[in-house]
Amino acid sequence: MTVLYLLDLMGTVAFAISGALAGVRKNMDLYGISVLSLVTAVGGGTIRDLLVGRIPPFIFRDYNYIVLSLLSALLVFFFYRKVEKGYNTLLIMDALGLGVFTVIGVKVGIDYNIGFIGAIFMGVMTGTVGGMIRDILQGEIPLVLRKEVYASACLLGGVVYLILYKALGYHFITVLVSILVVFTLRMIAIWRNWSLPKPK
Amino acid sequence: MTVLYLLDLMGTVAFAISGALAGVRKNMDLYGISVLSLVTAVGGGTIRDLLVGRIPPFIFRDYNYIVLSLLSALLVFFFYRKVEKGYNTLLIMDALGLGVFTVIGVKVGIDYNIGFIGAIFMGVMTGTVGGMIRDILQGEIPLVLRKEVYASACLLGGVVYLILYKALGYHFITVLVSILVVFTLRMIAIWRNWSLPKPK
Amino acid sequence: MTVLYLLDLMGTVAFAISGALAGVRKNMDLYGISVLSLVTAVGGGTIRDLLVGRIPPFIFRDYNYIVLSLLSALLVFFFYRKVEKGYNTLLIMDALGLGVFTVIGVKVGIDYNIGFIGAIFMGVMTGTVGGMIRDILQGEIPLVLRKEVYASACLLGGVVYLILYKALGYHFITVLVSILVVFTLRMIAIWRNWSLPKPK
Repeated sequence: MTVLYLLDLMGTVAFAISGALAGVRKNMDLYGISVLSLVTAVGGGTIRDLLVGRIPPFIFRDYNYIVLSLLSALLVFFFYRKVEKGYNTLLIMDALGLGVFTVIGVKVGIDYNIGFIGAIFMGVMTGTVGGMIRDILQGEIPLVLRKEVYASACLLGGVVYLILYKALGYHFITVLVSILVVFTLRMIAIWRNWSLPKPK
Repeated sequence: MTVLYLLDLMGTVAFAISGALAGVRKNMDLYGISVLSLVTAVGGGTIRDLLVGRIPPFIFRDYNYIVLSLLSALLVFFFYRKVEKGYNTLLIMDALGLGVFTVIGVKVGIDYNIGFIGAIFMGVMTGTVGGMIRDILQGEIPLVLRKEVYASACLLGGVVYLILYKALGYHFITVLVSILVVFTLRMIAIWRNWSLPKPK
Repeated sequence: MTVLYLLDLMGTVAFAISGALAGVRKNMDLYGISVLSLVTAVGGGTIRDLLVGRIPPFIFRDYNYIVLSLLSALLVFFFYRKVEKGYNTLLIMDALGLGVFTVIGVKVGIDYNIGFIGAIFMGVMTGTVGGMIRDILQGEIPLVLRKEVYASACLLGGVVYLILYKALGYHFITVLVSILVVFTLRMIAIWRNWSLPKPK
């Protein structure tokens, strides 16, 4: 599925840019911006790989992820204002990336036989843990824990993936529909400003 | 040792509730509360399993841990005030859980042949690392590093376990006495408001 | 290479002391100070070992690292003022340790066949990740992300190591020159107060 791979690289760039922008806002230097890029883009997938025993993790099997993350950091470093102006494009790329990361995470969970709850767990982790580390490294409580429909989109996408996987196997419809579910839910949530409930 | 397993699940619930309560206090949404629950309850054991190479970690071998953690999060979400009123009961459950987690951690260390210092290390980690991640995720310096006799109770319990293990092997007396040592020391520390020394 | 091993232990002490001093400044108790010591000294190497699948990690293969870290914590606990007065000596030991940690990290990367980018990655991680966890545990944005030439010294040292490794193999000149590159760059950066650029 070459298209999935290309979408995955695009999601990597979107996540890396969000990390780099956070680094710039926190007045970090070029190294700090690069670390935040990298961690946001590949942190979730790397920890996922550690948990299922996929050693070495994907970042050392295909260097495109590391290289693209670092190039994204450079892009933000030199063209900070221009990148920030593309905010809406970034949100769309991020939402699409979230869908792709979720699907890839669930697939790794299935491949490594850790059960269906485990597979969904891996989908959510792949989509959200990088951003959580980014927020901790910039000294903030992770945004995903406080508001917005973000992880929930991964959760729903993961469930849809498993249902379709049971029916069709690892078919392109399984992949496509799951990505679209995450993407659509995320986009509507941004548009309608949806949030998860909090205790009264 | 079915009793040990049941106590372990009880400890999981106690730790999960302490995580969920922290999430509520920090104004997190349902997802954030669930993540704090989960991380507090199973974070220490999961990192322990990664360090000894027990892959996949225990949470993917027996789903009761994840399910109970998430149910605890829901309990706190819907009955926050009632759960908080049971504060003293929670402290007792937490102290008992700490003992059980320590014993299980030391046992994993012994089973995976990482030496006696390593085994004690694993006992302390299993008992304390989940709470540390909980505190970092809510933007605070981990409580266990600053005051209270908490990790020290694990440390003493781990040493007692190893001594009894040398004498009796993996006997129920080894397990029982070690848990009681952690539990008693922790309870006395709460009651007498004990703290570890700080540099003058 | 016994000298490398001895320098590694010296670097461990230097890193452990920097962790312990941070703990004292944050008003932590003896346990907190010990954890910060340990994490600063061995955190980078431990995560490196997890990523390449070197299980159990080095800290459980040779207990000198854990024991020296904890002794350093005790030293700082009892002689805080005297240790702080040796600030300049500590900076030199830290810079030398940074070089040694980098070289060891790169070597582990090469030994575990994760490619040249991966090997440099491991060198930088071994030198910097312990300090990052130290800063997060004390509630601060990691210093290495914001200013100073620190990780960049590892990066350059790693590149030099790989070039010499290609030419000479794992020769003592490869090791010596790489350590000196990191050490010298770090010392000059402290002396001239060098920093990495930030976005305008």
